[in-house]
Amino acid sequence: MAQKRENIHKYLFGHPFRTDSVVADIPVSAGEAPYLLRSQDETGEVFRYALSEEDRVYGLGEQVRGIDKRGWVYASWNMDDPEIHENRQSLYASHNFLVVDGKEKFGVFVDSPGKVVYDIDYTTRGEMAIFCGRDFGLYIIEGESVLDVIRTFRKMIGRSYIPPKFAFGFAQSRWGYMNETDVREVADEYGKCGFPVDMIVLDIDYMENYKDFTINGERFPDFPAFVREMKARGIRLIPIIDAAVKAEDGYSVYEEGCKGGYFCKDKDGKPFIVGVWPGDSALPDFLSPEARAWFGEKYRVLLDCGIEGFWNDMNEPSLFYSKDSLARTIRGIAEKEGKNLSLTEFWSITGSVARLANNADDYASFYHETEGGKVSHKEVHNLYGYNMVRAASEYFGKYDKDKRTLIYSRSSHIGMHRYGGIWTGDNASRWDHLLLNLKMLPSLNMCGFLYVGADIGGFGQDTTEDLLLRWTALGAFVPLMRNHCTFGSRRQEYYRFGNRQAFKNLLDMRYSLVPYLYSEFVKSALRDELMYTPLGFLYPDDERAKETEDQMFVGGSIMIAPVYRQNTRGRNVYLPEDMKMVRMRSVSDYTEEILPKGDHYVEMGFGEVVFFVAKGKAIPLAKPAKNVAALDEEHLLWIKYADGKTTYELYDDDGFTTDVREENIRTVTV
Amino acid sequence: MAQKRENIHKYLFGHPFRTDSVVADIPVSAGEAPYLLRSQDETGEVFRYALSEEDRVYGLGEQVRGIDKRGWVYASWNMDDPEIHENRQSLYASHNFLVVDGKEKFGVFVDSPGKVVYDIDYTTRGEMAIFCGRDFGLYIIEGESVLDVIRTFRKMIGRSYIPPKFAFGFAQSRWGYMNETDVREVADEYGKCGFPVDMIVLDIDYMENYKDFTINGERFPDFPAFVREMKARGIRLIPIIDAAVKAEDGYSVYEEGCKGGYFCKDKDGKPFIVGVWPGDSALPDFLSPEARAWFGEKYRVLLDCGIEGFWNDMNEPSLFYSKDSLARTIRGIAEKEGKNLSLTEFWSITGSVARLANNADDYASFYHETEGGKVSHKEVHNLYGYNMVRAASEYFGKYDKDKRTLIYSRSSHIGMHRYGGIWTGDNASRWDHLLLNLKMLPSLNMCGFLYVGADIGGFGQDTTEDLLLRWTALGAFVPLMRNHCTFGSRRQEYYRFGNRQAFKNLLDMRYSLVPYLYSEFVKSALRDELMYTPLGFLYPDDERAKETEDQMFVGGSIMIAPVYRQNTRGRNVYLPEDMKMVRMRSVSDYTEEILPKGDHYVEMGFGEVVFFVAKGKAIPLAKPAKNVAALDEEHLLWIKYADGKTTYELYDDDGFTTDVREENIRTVTV
Repeated sequence: MAQKRENIHKYLFGHPFRTDSVVADIPVSAGEAPYLLRSQDETGEVFRYALSEEDRVYGLGEQVRGIDKRGWVYASWNMDDPEIHENRQSLYASHNFLVVDGKEKFGVFVDSPGKVVYDIDYTTRGEMAIFCGRDFGLYIIEGESVLDVIRTFRKMIGRSYIPPKFAFGFAQSRWGYMNETDVREVADEYGKCGFPVDMIVLDIDYMENYKDFTINGERFPDFPAFVREMKARGIRLIPIIDAAVKAEDGYSVYEEGCKGGYFCKDKDGKPFIVGVWPGDSALPDFLSPEARAWFGEKYRVLLDCGIEGFWNDMNEPSLFYSKDSLARTIRGIAEKEGKNLSLTEFWSITGSVARLANNADDYASFYHETEGGKVSHKEVHNLYGYNMVRAASEYFGKYDKDKRTLIYSRSSHIGMHRYGGIWTGDNASRWDHLLLNLKMLPSLNMCGFLYVGADIGGFGQDTTEDLLLRWTALGAFVPLMRNHCTFGSRRQEYYRFGNRQAFKNLLDMRYSLVPYLYSEFVKSALRDELMYTPLGFLYPDDERAKETEDQMFVGGSIMIAPVYRQNTRGRNVYLPEDMKMVRMRSVSDYTEEILPKGDHYVEMGFGEVVFFVAKGKAIPLAKPAKNVAALDEEHLLWIKYADGKTTYELYDDDGFTTDVREENIRTVTV
Repeated sequence: MAQKRENIHKYLFGHPFRTDSVVADIPVSAGEAPYLLRSQDETGEVFRYALSEEDRVYGLGEQVRGIDKRGWVYASWNMDDPEIHENRQSLYASHNFLVVDGKEKFGVFVDSPGKVVYDIDYTTRGEMAIFCGRDFGLYIIEGESVLDVIRTFRKMIGRSYIPPKFAFGFAQSRWGYMNETDVREVADEYGKCGFPVDMIVLDIDYMENYKDFTINGERFPDFPAFVREMKARGIRLIPIIDAAVKAEDGYSVYEEGCKGGYFCKDKDGKPFIVGVWPGDSALPDFLSPEARAWFGEKYRVLLDCGIEGFWNDMNEPSLFYSKDSLARTIRGIAEKEGKNLSLTEFWSITGSVARLANNADDYASFYHETEGGKVSHKEVHNLYGYNMVRAASEYFGKYDKDKRTLIYSRSSHIGMHRYGGIWTGDNASRWDHLLLNLKMLPSLNMCGFLYVGADIGGFGQDTTEDLLLRWTALGAFVPLMRNHCTFGSRRQEYYRFGNRQAFKNLLDMRYSLVPYLYSEFVKSALRDELMYTPLGFLYPDDERAKETEDQMFVGGSIMIAPVYRQNTRGRNVYLPEDMKMVRMRSVSDYTEEILPKGDHYVEMGFGEVVFFVAKGKAIPLAKPAKNVAALDEEHLLWIKYADGKTTYELYDDDGFTTDVREENIRTVTV
């Protein structure tokens, strides 16, 4: 029965599509939403709020720019465009939650499957305007503090996904591991260098012509045996599953999908054909419960091979072209053959080709069969990746109800946070993307996504050794720690660079931190809290803390301050209170120093992990090991900043149980 | 007669093209170049240098990344690609000078008109490799310090261009001022707001169908009268001249060029036709002295209208397509009509369209008639913009030998620094481009370019009010202070935003600084010194100073530390010695505070100009005025950091004389 919650106000507009983003049963409030001024324009409902100079606006999950979102226009519209910079309006995900922090403190959640636009202090300084469309739910969440508002929101959307513990190990990836030999080489080189590793990720080349749920038999002649071989070496293979299914007669998945009516359809009811990696392909209709059940069950072929983790890609969905629009474009260009072209005609050629990918008209040209009836993809675009992951996750529960399976996705929407994690898409080997990785972490946490990470070293373009070193030093503190890069870019496995000792230090330190990271992660999930907390959330009266967006609390004990500038030997660090600085090359080689509140310049060497411990806090560390399973968590080492004894709440389990609960947290006195 | 200089070593390889980059007559040295290890590969000569950890590498002028160039591959290859980020290898200019600063200190200048590649600590950490090609001059410059090496180099390449004094005023620009009404509106609004302005810039729309040296008679019915009208209001119009000439029968410039043989030719000797703004166009052969003389004389039509300043654009040269490659591409796509395409065929379509612009094969398909004979454009690509400006500059000297004319260019090469200034091309409204603007300044100065600037607020994409405020606070210290943006982007004239008082403060402060900026600029030109000096050049024993790349000395007295992060109220500042902090809202509203050497957090409000004065230094300031000519420089105000009296070397003149000399500097005691 719906329970009235004093601190949540809910309103419905038009005919909202059921997104399942919210799990709490909240009654609709009477009257108008508080705080916001409602009006209408040609796009639908608009809500405005007057921002005063001291207000800050947090949230929106996977988005560009800073932790404070003031000063830009953001749009929720899942988009595969790898050119990521501060002037993009959308990335791969749509996370419609934000918090205003000022004299008034409140959260806004727009429960919409379609486009939502946030003009925060951009068009008019001092005004936030949210363009919600016509059919949506609106939630206003009140609280005493930013953290209080977030906790209430997180409770409302349900417990965040918790992956198996091995997912806190390190994952080496690259688009271009073509066969067993390539994968073995990676495993061998990691072994030779003494670098720990838990996962090697398989990008699209393991499949037969990029067909989902197939294995290329020439490249992997006995896949189950190869999975076993790798697992015996302590390494799990994590294959990719792309959203679209190759449209090929004789391919069972395609034929089943056609027969069952499981694909998105064009206006005539035929599967809508798009071009992606396999060439012409059909899009599973993940918004249909039947299609989800069918597609989820397909994972069985890989689970039966011993696979325990997956990633889902291309699920915005990304379209290189639609079959119709490509034909139309070629026809348009062919008509210009032999003619004397004006510049306008020339631009029409380049424009038509540039518009082929992820075209809005294509997104408006196919349909889903949902529980609420047939609906244009355009109206529910942002739910596609979410429900692809849900399909897998719901099946994993059936396949083995007692065991957690790893899954993370490129595209997402609030609601998906209960089913899987995300990596933040196709970033590039750029120093500003390292910083963006850091800044996005708390925003993602706010929206329920705890198992998150960015491709370390950068996916696109060419990395440099120093960028990879600095990024890895950040990655050591991020749940999904994956080094991944694109086909044709500079190879960036750690063993390919000169400064192996520095990389080994960083990887070993990551493994030493696993007991802390896992414990903090699970506590964050169980308690609806942030794992990454900006300084300003914790020190709300400290303006300097609020302005500091390049430092972060990781869990309750540690503050990090990563280096994100090339050719520097350290950086400025602001301490919001006295803290203990710990400089670790390994758990047996470190120094500690208590630094007073205020500004410090701190040197940070390439092979060092430097962090800051808050007063009264402790951190459990393990001796490094070759993988998570090999960590000795019976004999933890402790770092603390306390005069006498202090306590730490430690969560641990067998790494797989689905029975994750508060009772498994024990208080350790150290 | 060639004079032996102990500190310059010169070597020639192959058959060097005469670039006229160097003006000093330097004899060729015997033996191998010092410091560098010479080898050969398939591209030609390669020179390597082992970098130790403490070495830093400075220079390369208009390039991406930091002041210290370690950790990337840079290529000299003038390129019009507005997507500027740290992983680009080339921007619009080629500036082949760098300095190694370590135990050994030396400069390297590669005197080449073609591609040169610098792999600095990228492929192999600890190694710099310079790929010079086959035909080039190599200069090694030795000195006691980085500044000493730079001074020697600058002397060798000749005195930097000095524009008229009005060019130190503010310039408002936008692609899209279509006619007299649009321009008058800008002048009116500046007047109403009390904002000073010296120049309004005319982008391509003032021309008739983008034809060089024409005026659109409908938009500007009486151009000479309009120029007079604006000048009477204290505003000069600065029209654009693009490189390519519309290929249109009846257009006199095209017909003269054809008749005189002044265009670049294809292999059959016919004008090579490319697509740029006017549609099909021919490229003047600026490497031919006859073509330069012809094209330069064309400026007369505008000079006779009263125009006193120009900008040169599209002179990499930028090519949207060549007529041949466009036809070939359309034919290739037309062949695919109606076929069932593989993904590879699809990529071949998108790839062929993407390769149309600035294609290397096109650059290899046309030829110049030079004093040294016919040469493929590919071999001398980087000299094109340089010689376009030279054509104009040489004519300006003939038109009025006693008067300096303003000219600045997008593309450039060392040598051009004697003929004109540059703006750094089509940046975007991004916070990282504000920082890049700052970092590029000393590198440009090292290569001889003193009259420089970036488009304030950003050319591409949409600016924000706070970005424009912060960028203007930097721009107040940059010689070419131009607010410019592209067609279709958000309008960014200062009067379009709410915080007018803050913009007025910044603009007024700029004008107050003109006596200082002009004086420091001219002294830098006369003495072959930097106007922008990184802290590390001045405090070579201070590692923190070397690492600080976001602060800069402007002239000898002032250090600036611009804010380049959104949603911040200040920033960390490192003082390499005790300095006086000056916080000015205007020359009559300011505070001073002496701060000790070390780290400080300094608040910087939107309408404030904050700078730091070095010990013993003074700064002349004028009361603000509506334009440079109206400044009262008889009654200067002084800011100083000195216990008693100190002195300042003040240069001033009538603002136009070509007789600029050391003797006009007077020492003022304050």
